[in-house]
Amino acid sequence: MKNLITILFEPTGRKINVRPGISLLKAAHEAGVTIRSECGGKGACGKCRVIIPDKPAVTEITEDEKKHLSLEEIELGYRLACRAILKKSTKVMIPEESRILARKIQASGLEIPVQLKPYVKKLQSKLAKPTLLDARSDLERLIDLVKNAHGFTELEIGYEALKELPATLRQADWHVTAVLLGDRQIISVEEGDTSDKIFGLAVDIGTSKIVGCLVDLATGRTLSVGFVENPQIIYGEDVVSRITFSANHADKLQTLQRLLVEGINSILSYTCAQVEVHPQDVYEVTVVGNTAMHHFFLGINPKYVAISPFTPALKRSINVKAKELGINICPEGNVHVLPVIAGFVGADAVADLLASDIHGSEELSLLFDIGTNTEVFVGNSEDILSCSCASGPAFEGGHIKHGMKAVTGAIERVSITSDYEVEYTTIDNEAPRGLCGSAMIDVLAQLFKLGVINERGRFNTNIRTSRLRRANDGLEFVLVWKEENGTGVDITITQKDINELQLAKAAIFAGCSILMNKKKVELEEIDGLLVAGSFGSYINPENAKLIGLVPDVPTEKIRFVGNTALSGAKMSLISEDVRKTAEELSRKVCYIELASDPEFHKEFADAAFIPHKDINRFPSVKKALF
Amino acid sequence: MKNLITILFEPTGRKINVRPGISLLKAAHEAGVTIRSECGGKGACGKCRVIIPDKPAVTEITEDEKKHLSLEEIELGYRLACRAILKKSTKVMIPEESRILARKIQASGLEIPVQLKPYVKKLQSKLAKPTLLDARSDLERLIDLVKNAHGFTELEIGYEALKELPATLRQADWHVTAVLLGDRQIISVEEGDTSDKIFGLAVDIGTSKIVGCLVDLATGRTLSVGFVENPQIIYGEDVVSRITFSANHADKLQTLQRLLVEGINSILSYTCAQVEVHPQDVYEVTVVGNTAMHHFFLGINPKYVAISPFTPALKRSINVKAKELGINICPEGNVHVLPVIAGFVGADAVADLLASDIHGSEELSLLFDIGTNTEVFVGNSEDILSCSCASGPAFEGGHIKHGMKAVTGAIERVSITSDYEVEYTTIDNEAPRGLCGSAMIDVLAQLFKLGVINERGRFNTNIRTSRLRRANDGLEFVLVWKEENGTGVDITITQKDINELQLAKAAIFAGCSILMNKKKVELEEIDGLLVAGSFGSYINPENAKLIGLVPDVPTEKIRFVGNTALSGAKMSLISEDVRKTAEELSRKVCYIELASDPEFHKEFADAAFIPHKDINRFPSVKKALF
Repeated sequence: MKNLITILFEPTGRKINVRPGISLLKAAHEAGVTIRSECGGKGACGKCRVIIPDKPAVTEITEDEKKHLSLEEIELGYRLACRAILKKSTKVMIPEESRILARKIQASGLEIPVQLKPYVKKLQSKLAKPTLLDARSDLERLIDLVKNAHGFTELEIGYEALKELPATLRQADWHVTAVLLGDRQIISVEEGDTSDKIFGLAVDIGTSKIVGCLVDLATGRTLSVGFVENPQIIYGEDVVSRITFSANHADKLQTLQRLLVEGINSILSYTCAQVEVHPQDVYEVTVVGNTAMHHFFLGINPKYVAISPFTPALKRSINVKAKELGINICPEGNVHVLPVIAGFVGADAVADLLASDIHGSEELSLLFDIGTNTEVFVGNSEDILSCSCASGPAFEGGHIKHGMKAVTGAIERVSITSDYEVEYTTIDNEAPRGLCGSAMIDVLAQLFKLGVINERGRFNTNIRTSRLRRANDGLEFVLVWKEENGTGVDITITQKDINELQLAKAAIFAGCSILMNKKKVELEEIDGLLVAGSFGSYINPENAKLIGLVPDVPTEKIRFVGNTALSGAKMSLISEDVRKTAEELSRKVCYIELASDPEFHKEFADAAFIPHKDINRFPSVKKALF
Repeated sequence: MKNLITILFEPTGRKINVRPGISLLKAAHEAGVTIRSECGGKGACGKCRVIIPDKPAVTEITEDEKKHLSLEEIELGYRLACRAILKKSTKVMIPEESRILARKIQASGLEIPVQLKPYVKKLQSKLAKPTLLDARSDLERLIDLVKNAHGFTELEIGYEALKELPATLRQADWHVTAVLLGDRQIISVEEGDTSDKIFGLAVDIGTSKIVGCLVDLATGRTLSVGFVENPQIIYGEDVVSRITFSANHADKLQTLQRLLVEGINSILSYTCAQVEVHPQDVYEVTVVGNTAMHHFFLGINPKYVAISPFTPALKRSINVKAKELGINICPEGNVHVLPVIAGFVGADAVADLLASDIHGSEELSLLFDIGTNTEVFVGNSEDILSCSCASGPAFEGGHIKHGMKAVTGAIERVSITSDYEVEYTTIDNEAPRGLCGSAMIDVLAQLFKLGVINERGRFNTNIRTSRLRRANDGLEFVLVWKEENGTGVDITITQKDINELQLAKAAIFAGCSILMNKKKVELEEIDGLLVAGSFGSYINPENAKLIGLVPDVPTEKIRFVGNTALSGAKMSLISEDVRKTAEELSRKVCYIELASDPEFHKEFADAAFIPHKDINRFPSVKKALF
C-alpha cells in the first residue's frame, strides 16, 4: 500500500491527506475546496486552473492542458486540476478566477414559527454484542433497536452506511448513533453519541444569486448564512439565454447543473466553516428556486418550460441522494427539492407562500415577488390564485440607461423637491453609480407628482429646469450631475427608461388585476399586501401605489416580508409538516396563464398609464393629486 | 461540441461511438467489453493492458504506465486502458490476459414451477399531450396514467429516468413504456411500446465459479447461461485466504468487490450477446452466493463472518441500485441480493432451499450442498435445521495428491475389479489428468469393498497387486499408470489422500447426524435425500452411502438436484412471492453452530470410520459387506 501524501491548498490554508494517484481536482473536492470545473474533470473546459510551484509533485503536463495554458503559464506552474495527478505532498495555489467564493449576506425573511419536526433524526444507543447464542446480524441488531425506539416497521439502510456497518459497530464498541431519514431509511451509523451534531442547509437558487443558510436541526436555529453569485451567469444574465444555451446540448445542460452544485457546495463549505461544523454532519439540503433553476439543478432540460404550454418536468417535490447530485454533505444524505406550481411559478414561490402563510389565514392577502418574472398570489385559507407576470429586467436595472442591481453605489431612494432638486441615498453610502429598482419607483412617482411626466409617462417640455434636456436619444431628466458622482457622466432617466418602467409595472398590475377579477375581490376586501424578495424591502410603498405598481390599499396593510424564499426552504428543512403543506400548495394553488387570458391585453394597456387609465381604481392617488 | 469517434475492440469486433476525452477503459465499459481492472481505473494495478497500434489516437504514455509496461511493450503499442485518453477513432486489441471471458455452461438445477410475478413490470401507453388547459407536469401526467392502470398510490421516479423524461416523452410523441420496480418506483421511461423487452439476470457467485442465466421476465424462460471463473481466484483459491487478504485494507476489499462485479458484467455481456438482448433492457439482477461472496459482492468486509461468533453484516435481502454497484444493466435497475441464514449458511443455501422446496412439503427431507463448506439441512414445512460442515477442499481436489476440479480430463467415475484392475471414465473423454470428487468417492468405496483399505482407512499390505506400493511419502494405490495418461506420472491415491477424504466425509456426516439428533429424526423417517451442486450430479449414490458420506437411506430416495443455487436465484427473479419465502426462510431456518456443539467431537470421530464406527447406522452396507 502506498503512503498518504499531504496537499495544502492556498490561500485558504486547507490541508488534506490523500493517497497518491488521484487528480488534484478530486483531492480538492475531498478537502471541501471548491474549484471551478464546468466539464466535470474531463480536461475540456480549462476552468480548473491551479498553480503548483513544485512541478515534480504531480504528473507531467498533458496535451489537454497545453491547449488551455500558455507557455508562460506552464513555466509558472499553472496546471488544470483535473489533469494533474498527485504524486507527492505539495502546496497548491488556487487563483481567484478558479474559485467560487461564498460570502456573508444579510438574508432574513419573514418566517412563521413551526414546530420542530425535521425529516432527519438521530438515535444513539448501546447495542448488545453478538454471541454464539445471539447470532443476529449486525444490521438486524441495529434495526431491532431502532424499531423498539421508534416503532418503525419497514426500515432500510443506505448502501454506503451498510458497507461500513461491521467496522463502525466494533470500532465504537457497539455504542453508536444511527441517522434516520424519515421513518424508513438509516443513512449513516456513527461512532459514539453524536446526537447533538445534526445539521441541514436551506438553499434558494436565484437567477443571479444563490443564498443558503446552515441550520441546527436539533434546535431549528439558523447558524450562518452565505451566498455566491450564481456561477451560471457566465452563460447569460437571464434565464432565457441559459435555457437557449443548453436547450439542445446535454453536455451544456450538465455544465449548468454542475455550476449550481458547485455554488451550493461552496456555500456549504463557507457556512460550515463559519461555525466549525463538519459538512459530513449535514444530512439534508432543501432547495428552492424558480422553475428554470429547479430544472437546471436537477439536470433536467428546462426548454419545455419556456415554450407553450410551458410544461414543467415535474411539479411535486423530489428527494435525491446527495451523492447522486454531487452535494458534499453526508453521501447518503438527502436533497429535498420543493415542489413547483407551474412553469413560471416555481419552488421559490411555494416557499414564499410557506413563509408568508397566506394559506393559513382567513384574511385575504395579495403577495408579490418582484423580479424579471413577478409572481403574484391572491387568496387565503380557502383558495389561492397565482400568475406570473413578464415584468422584465427593468426593476433589476436591465434595459435602463443608468440602471443597476441593488449593490454598493446604487441609488436606492430618491426624492425630488418642488424646484426639481434631487435628494438621494446610495447603498453603503458610496458615490452614486446608477439607479436600482426602488429608486426608479421613487423617481417615476416624484416626476409624476411634480408634473414632469404625465399619465402616459411623457415628459412635459413646459417644465423649466436644466435637468430636463434633450439628448441624442430623446428627452431625459438628470438625477445626478457628473460632478457629484463617480461615473464621469450625468446619471439620468430617459423617456425610454420611463416607458420601460411603465411596461414593467403594467405587466405586474395587469396580472394582479386579472387575479382579483377571477377571485371577485374588491380593493377594500384586501386585508394585507405582502411584497417578498430583497428588492421589496427598499420600496417606498406610497410611491409604489402612486405609479400603479400595486393596488391602492392603505399603507398600513403593506408589508415587506424579505427573502421568504429562503425562509420557506428553511421551514421545510426543520419540519416535515411544512413539506406536506408545500405539496398541498403545489397542487391546490390555481395557476392562471396570463398569455391566454382574453382580458390581459386590455388590462395591460390600461395599467400602462400612471397610475392607471381608470383613476378611480387608485382612490388615494386621485384624492392626493387630482 | 466535439464530434464522436469510433472505437473498434478486437478480438470481439465490438464497436462504439464515443466523445473524445474519455479513457479507453470507460469506452470499453460503455461498449460492454470487460477489461480486467482491479484498482478501478486509477493506474495502480496495471491489469487493464491493451494494445493500441495507432499511437497518436490516444494521449501520450504516462508515468503510471511506464511502471507497469516494459520498453518493448510500449514500443508495441501496449497501454493501460485507464490511462490512455481517446483522441481519435482507432482499433484496440485486448490481449487474453486482460479479458474476463464468459463461456457457455450446462447449469441446470431442479426448479419448482412458480407463478410468474416479477418485481419488474412494464406498462405501455399513449399519454395526452399537454395543453394550456391541461397543464399537468410531465411526471404527474405519467404517474396519473400508471396509477389508473395499476392503482399504485405512492409512486416515485428514479433520478436518471426523471432527467430524461421531458425529452423521451416528446421524442416518442407521448407513446411510451414505463418500467416499474415493485409498486413504488418508475425506473425507466422508454420510447414507444417496449413491453416485450423485459429481462433479468440470475447469478450464483461461487468461490470458484460465477454462473448466471439471462431470463425473459415476460415468459419466465431462461434464454442463455454463462459462467466465468471467479476472477478473485488470483487472490486465493479459498474463501479464507481472500478474507485474510482484504481484512484490513479497504482498497483490497474494493478490488475483490470490483472483480465480482466485472465477472457478472462479463456474464451479462455474454448471455445477452448469445440471444441479441441489449443489456440496458435488463432491469434486475438477483444474486446468491455463500456469505463471504455475498459480503464481498456488496463491498462489506467479511472478516467478522470468519471469526467467532461468525456474525454476518446482514441477513435480510437487500436491494441496491445497479449504478451504485457498477452492474451494467439499466442504471436505475435493481440488484436484489438474497438473504443469508448465518455466517456459514449463505444466500446460495437459501436458494437451494427455494429450489428444492423442502419447506413446502410435509415430507421430511435432508439436503446437502457439498463444497469446501458443506451446508446440510433437515426438515419440512414445519421447521428446518441447518448447519455448515467444514468439509475442506478435498472433494474439490484440494490437498489430494492427484486431485483436481471437475474439468476436462478429470476422472469422474471409477470402478475396481476384484483383481484390482481399474476402469474409469473422464470428463470430455480426454486422457486422464487427475481425480475429481465423484471419482474419489468411487475409489474409496471400491477399495473398502475389496478390503484394500480397512474401516479406519488403512491400506491392507497383505493385498497382492503391483498397484499397491510404498512411495517416498507412504503407501499408495496406482489408479492409472503413466503410460495410459498424459501427465507423465502414475495417478495414485495415497494413504494421506484417504485420510483427508475420511475427515471431509466425517465432517459432513457428523453435521448431518447432529441435525438429525436435534430434530429427533430416525433414518427410516427420511422421505428424501437431496444432493445439490454440480458436484453432486456425478456421485454414485451407492458409493456415497458405502463410505458413510450420507445416511444409509434407500437409493431411490436419493436425488441429485443440480445447481439449485442458480435455480433459486432465478425463481426469485421471476417471482416476488419467492422473495418473501426466501426472507421467511432466512428468519425461520434454525442454524446450529457445530463448533460449539458438545456432541460434535464424538460424532466426528465416529464418522471418520468407513462407513461409521457404529455399523448399525448403515444397515444396507452392513448387510452387503459383513
